[in-house]
Amino acid sequence: MHPAARGTLYLVPTPLDFGIKQDVPASAGEWLPAETWMTASRITHWITENAKSTRAFLKRIDAVHPLAAPLQAQHVVELPKAAHKKGDHVPHADVDAQARELLSPAELGHDMGLVSEAGMPAIADPGSSIVRAAHTLGVRVVPLTGPISLMLALAASGLNGQSFAFVGYVPQDTLERAQRLKELESLALKTGQTQIVIETPYRNAALLQGMLQTLHPHTRLAVCGALTLPQQVCRSALVNDWKRDPRLAASLPLEAPCVFLLGR
Amino acid sequence: MHPAARGTLYLVPTPLDFGIKQDVPASAGEWLPAETWMTASRITHWITENAKSTRAFLKRIDAVHPLAAPLQAQHVVELPKAAHKKGDHVPHADVDAQARELLSPAELGHDMGLVSEAGMPAIADPGSSIVRAAHTLGVRVVPLTGPISLMLALAASGLNGQSFAFVGYVPQDTLERAQRLKELESLALKTGQTQIVIETPYRNAALLQGMLQTLHPHTRLAVCGALTLPQQVCRSALVNDWKRDPRLAASLPLEAPCVFLLGR
Repeated sequence: MHPAARGTLYLVPTPLDFGIKQDVPASAGEWLPAETWMTASRITHWITENAKSTRAFLKRIDAVHPLAAPLQAQHVVELPKAAHKKGDHVPHADVDAQARELLSPAELGHDMGLVSEAGMPAIADPGSSIVRAAHTLGVRVVPLTGPISLMLALAASGLNGQSFAFVGYVPQDTLERAQRLKELESLALKTGQTQIVIETPYRNAALLQGMLQTLHPHTRLAVCGALTLPQQVCRSALVNDWKRDPRLAASLPLEAPCVFLLGR
Repeated sequence: MHPAARGTLYLVPTPLDFGIKQDVPASAGEWLPAETWMTASRITHWITENAKSTRAFLKRIDAVHPLAAPLQAQHVVELPKAAHKKGDHVPHADVDAQARELLSPAELGHDMGLVSEAGMPAIADPGSSIVRAAHTLGVRVVPLTGPISLMLALAASGLNGQSFAFVGYVPQDTLERAQRLKELESLALKTGQTQIVIETPYRNAALLQGMLQTLHPHTRLAVCGALTLPQQVCRSALVNDWKRDPRLAASLPLEAPCVFLLGR
């Protein structure tokens, strides 16, 4: 089923500070395990959301563990535009065919790395069409360990981690957002399933405001921001307490990526 | 809000090989980031699911990064029995009061570590009552990076990672299990939300069998087992293909912890 001649597709997580600052902090190596750095340093063929940030990531890898091939000799290709824009999580003949094409180096025996902008590829990020194609082609798929902001936030929330759902973004329109938040809250209170939501940083403050206006006073709301970064903060309290103590919201790094969680 | 005198509660992930083998493999240090090892080595007060395995974990930490206090001087306390048995994800006055008591070292200024048997505490494992209590007491909560089998499996499944739910265990009874699987499948197909399920290893084979008998031929089923271990395997295919090619199921390490995922 897996001829020895085929390469492996590694799912390579990246540190969570990409997109926040361009300079490499002294502690860049500290948030990925040695296994991830070592494996990544041996890869020469990459599929990515963004070639530029992947080249910056390759420089980081090289600083921690020397690259097997110099930066100029690394093959970096971007995901098909369609996958990038609309997401590639819905199987689609065209996207899936393009994904198989991108994996041709693996069919020729090269190990490949799939990366996204920050965190784990194919989780709250594109890349799943590449993984499906690998399974179709009989290319071995190996996920590597790294920070996943949704799960760091879930653990730090104190909310139910035995049953939870990540539902992506909520609508931007105030009324639609309120309606969606009510829906998610009612599901969370009825079933006990923690609901996890994200937002683009410049709308974080509006989302938090909307949550405090919309949710029941006894619903628990947790917000974790700037995870793994020096300015990281996690707050978890009943909606009532968020309203009573404005210092809770004021202490959050809402300008950085944040994860919002609600439940009972 | 957070007097400087208080300690921090660190959520400390452990390698995924605990409970599988007792000996420390040469690569023990490779699956946790340096930041996690270094932070863990400075902690002297622990809250855990199981004191014995936490002492074994402390030996591993010491081998990677010397412990700040010798093993005999480390304070290791177990979660309240109620939290351990039934789970502590449902807020309950007694469990929450006990959790606050366990955090008294943090109130006195000691940093504390929360750990579970394998992976991330409070995700598919107990510990959330301690995290809620920390927020109530104004003790800072900091999650550390490590392997989370549910997310490694989700990334490697090729299934939708933009919307997913972890629903825990399914019933053991054959008919009830079939009914629950049908429910989860119908939700996944209707909403596109990937459904993630786990089982105790000795029932993995029966669950896989049940899934192949119950699910629609065009539903995608992924199974990932022994994640981060040498015998790790991830398979993802349509139910039809699982049935047509018995080598897919035969190649899985079903005797090890596995994650099951279904979707479209």
